[in-house]
Amino acid sequence: MPSTQTAVIVHSGGPTPVLNASLAGIVAECRRHSEIAAVYGARHGNTGLIADDFVDLTVADTDPLAFAPGSAIGSSRRKIEPNECERILANLRRRQVRLLFYTGGNGSMETARLLDRLASDAGYELRVIGIPKTIDNDIVRTDHTPGYASCARFFAHAVRDVGEDNRALPPPIEVVEVLGRNVGWVVAATALARHYEDDPPHLIYLPECGISPDQLCADVERVYRRVGRCLVAVCEGQRDASGGWFGAAIDSAQNARNALPSNMGSVIARIITECTGLRARAERPGLVGRSSAPLASAVDREESWRCGEAGVRAALEGRSGEMVAIERCEGTEYASRMTTVPLELVAGIERKFPLEWIAPARNDVTADFLNWLSPLVGEVKLHPRL
Amino acid sequence: MPSTQTAVIVHSGGPTPVLNASLAGIVAECRRHSEIAAVYGARHGNTGLIADDFVDLTVADTDPLAFAPGSAIGSSRRKIEPNECERILANLRRRQVRLLFYTGGNGSMETARLLDRLASDAGYELRVIGIPKTIDNDIVRTDHTPGYASCARFFAHAVRDVGEDNRALPPPIEVVEVLGRNVGWVVAATALARHYEDDPPHLIYLPECGISPDQLCADVERVYRRVGRCLVAVCEGQRDASGGWFGAAIDSAQNARNALPSNMGSVIARIITECTGLRARAERPGLVGRSSAPLASAVDREESWRCGEAGVRAALEGRSGEMVAIERCEGTEYASRMTTVPLELVAGIERKFPLEWIAPARNDVTADFLNWLSPLVGEVKLHPRL
Repeated sequence: MPSTQTAVIVHSGGPTPVLNASLAGIVAECRRHSEIAAVYGARHGNTGLIADDFVDLTVADTDPLAFAPGSAIGSSRRKIEPNECERILANLRRRQVRLLFYTGGNGSMETARLLDRLASDAGYELRVIGIPKTIDNDIVRTDHTPGYASCARFFAHAVRDVGEDNRALPPPIEVVEVLGRNVGWVVAATALARHYEDDPPHLIYLPECGISPDQLCADVERVYRRVGRCLVAVCEGQRDASGGWFGAAIDSAQNARNALPSNMGSVIARIITECTGLRARAERPGLVGRSSAPLASAVDREESWRCGEAGVRAALEGRSGEMVAIERCEGTEYASRMTTVPLELVAGIERKFPLEWIAPARNDVTADFLNWLSPLVGEVKLHPRL
Repeated sequence: MPSTQTAVIVHSGGPTPVLNASLAGIVAECRRHSEIAAVYGARHGNTGLIADDFVDLTVADTDPLAFAPGSAIGSSRRKIEPNECERILANLRRRQVRLLFYTGGNGSMETARLLDRLASDAGYELRVIGIPKTIDNDIVRTDHTPGYASCARFFAHAVRDVGEDNRALPPPIEVVEVLGRNVGWVVAATALARHYEDDPPHLIYLPECGISPDQLCADVERVYRRVGRCLVAVCEGQRDASGGWFGAAIDSAQNARNALPSNMGSVIARIITECTGLRARAERPGLVGRSSAPLASAVDREESWRCGEAGVRAALEGRSGEMVAIERCEGTEYASRMTTVPLELVAGIERKFPLEWIAPARNDVTADFLNWLSPLVGEVKLHPRL
C-alpha cells in the first residue's frame, strides 16, 4: 500500500434521511488517519465513477450533512456495464484511490463485490468496503440497515396522526400506502402507532403474505363492526394470494397483469369500497417517507454515521470485499456494535420479513417484532385522549 | 341570562393539527368564569347536536389535547336539515345551554348563523360564537385561520425534503400534491422550502390561476433545461385554462369531465411525461398534511387556543352571531390580537388566494406573500449542502 492514499465514497440507490450521516462518518474517520490524504465522492454514484466525476470532500464541512436527507454527492441506479470496468479501474488508478466505500442495498453490494474482484484480478491494490443503506431493511447478516428506522419512524407517526384525523371524521376506511415493494419491514413498523386496543393500524398487510380481495374485505368488515372504522396499512407492493400484485387482475383496465400499480393504496381503497360499500380513501406520502428530516430516528442517524466510521477502520485494517454490519449487543439497554461480513454472503440476497413475526391472522405483526424494532425507532408518543 | 350557564362546543368539517387547541382554550377560559357551570362537546358535530349526544368536558383534562391532531370530541360534515332545528333547540333548552361555540370553516359559519337565528326567533337566549378553523385559510375578515400554518408547515417541509431526495436521485420531474381543492393558500406556502435559487419548489400552481397542459409542460421543460430537474407543487384542485379540473378532458377515460380526479398529482405527472418525455412521479401525503403533530406550527397552536379563549370572552360580553377573527398587530415583531366579526360577513364566503400575490408568470408566489406567511409557519430550515 502506498504511504498516502485516496478514499472514494459512492452512493447507490434511493437516498434515506441518514445516508449523508454515513458519508459524514466516513469523512470524519478518514481525517483521523494521516495516511488518508484525500477523500472524494463520486458524483451521482456509478455515473461519476465511470465518468471520473468526483467531488472533493477532503476539507469539506461534512459534519452538518448528517442532518440533511438525500445525498450530498448524488446517487444513481445506473448499473456498471462489463465494457465500463476498465475505464473505472483506470480512473481509480490515476487518482491513486486505494479505499472505496460503496453505500447501498443488497443489489448495490453486488456492484461493490464486482469492483473488489475487478481490482484484485487486475492486481491493483484496492480495498472495497460496503456500507449498508436502505429504508427497506432487506439486507441479510446485519441486525438492521441504516435508513430503515427513520423511514419506519415517519410512517408510524403518519399512521398515528391520520388515525386521529380518521377517528374524528370518517370516511370509515382509511388506507395508508407505505414504501416497500418486495418486503414488509416498513409497513410492519406502523404497528408502533398503536397504544390503545382500538388504535390504528387496525390491519397491516405484508408482501410476504399474499392476500385475496375476499380476505381483505372480510378483515375490513370485521374491524369496522368492532371499531366503527378501519385504518389499513399496506405497502406499494402488496401481493395477492397467487403471488401477483394485489389488484392487478381486478384492475386490468388500468394496469396490465404483472405490472405493479403505481397507487396500490388507491387500488385497495377502491376494491374495499366496491366489495363492502364502505367509503374509503388512501394517502400516499411516498418519497416524503424516505426523506423527512424532522422525523428521522436519532439512533438511526448515529448508527449510519458509525457504519461509515467502521468502514474506514475496516479498510485500514486491510479488509476488502466486506460490508459493515450492525450487531445488536446483549443486554436490556439497546446498544449496537459494528462488525463486517463478506460481501458474497449479502450481495443480491433479499431479507424478507420473518414469517414468525407475522401474526397468525396474516394481518398484523407480533409483539416480538415490536420489541425488536422499538429501540431503533424511538418512542411514537401516544396522543392524549379525553 | 340565568346565573349559571352551560357551554357547548361543536366541531364541523375536517380536523386540523390544532383544532383541539381551540377546544382546550374554550374549556380553559370557561373554567375562569364561575357563571359557567358546565361545558359539553357535541359528539361528532351536528350529529351530536341533533341526537343530544354530548361529551362532558366540565372537569376533563383538556390542556394536553392541544398537542393532539384530529378532534377529541369528533367532527362531522353533516348538514342540519330544516326539520331538525326544533329538535336541536329542544336539546339546548333542556340542558340550559346558553353559550355555543361553533368551530369550522366558512361553510360551517353558515350553520353557526342558522343556530343563532333559530334561537333568537324562538326567543331563547343563546349566544353563538364562531371559532375559525380550516387548513384552507379560506375565511375572509381574519388575517388567517387556525390550522392553516400547521398544514403549510408540513407541506413546506415535505417539499424541502423530497427536493433533497430528488436532487440526489432523479426522476427529473417530481410532483408533490398538496391539500386544497378550491384555493391555493397551502400550495403557495411550499415556497418557504426555497433557500437557494435552484431549490424546489420550482413551479407552484394555484387553482386561482388555471393553466393549460401546454403552458405547464413548457414551464417544466424550461426549468429542466436550467436546473436539470423540476419539482412541481400543485394542489388537489388545480384548474385548467377554461376553469375545469386540470386533466379532466385529457384524462376522460378515467375521470368524467367536471369530476375532480382523486389523484391530481399523478394526473399531472402523467401529462408531463406524455408531453415532454421526461420521467415524472408524484407524491400525495394527503391527510398526513392536515394531521401531522410533529410538524404543527407553535404560533398556530397558540393562536388556535387563544381563539377559543376569545370566543368565551366574547360570549360572556353578550355578543352573539359573531366569529372570532385574528388581527395582525402593526410592528416588526409578529403579534396578533383576537377580535370578532359578524357571522353574516364571513359565512359562506370563500377567500381566494390574492391575485397580487401570484407572480406574473402564474407559476410562483411573491416575496410579499412569503413575508406575510413566514411568522405564522416559523422557520423552514435550510439543509446544509457541500
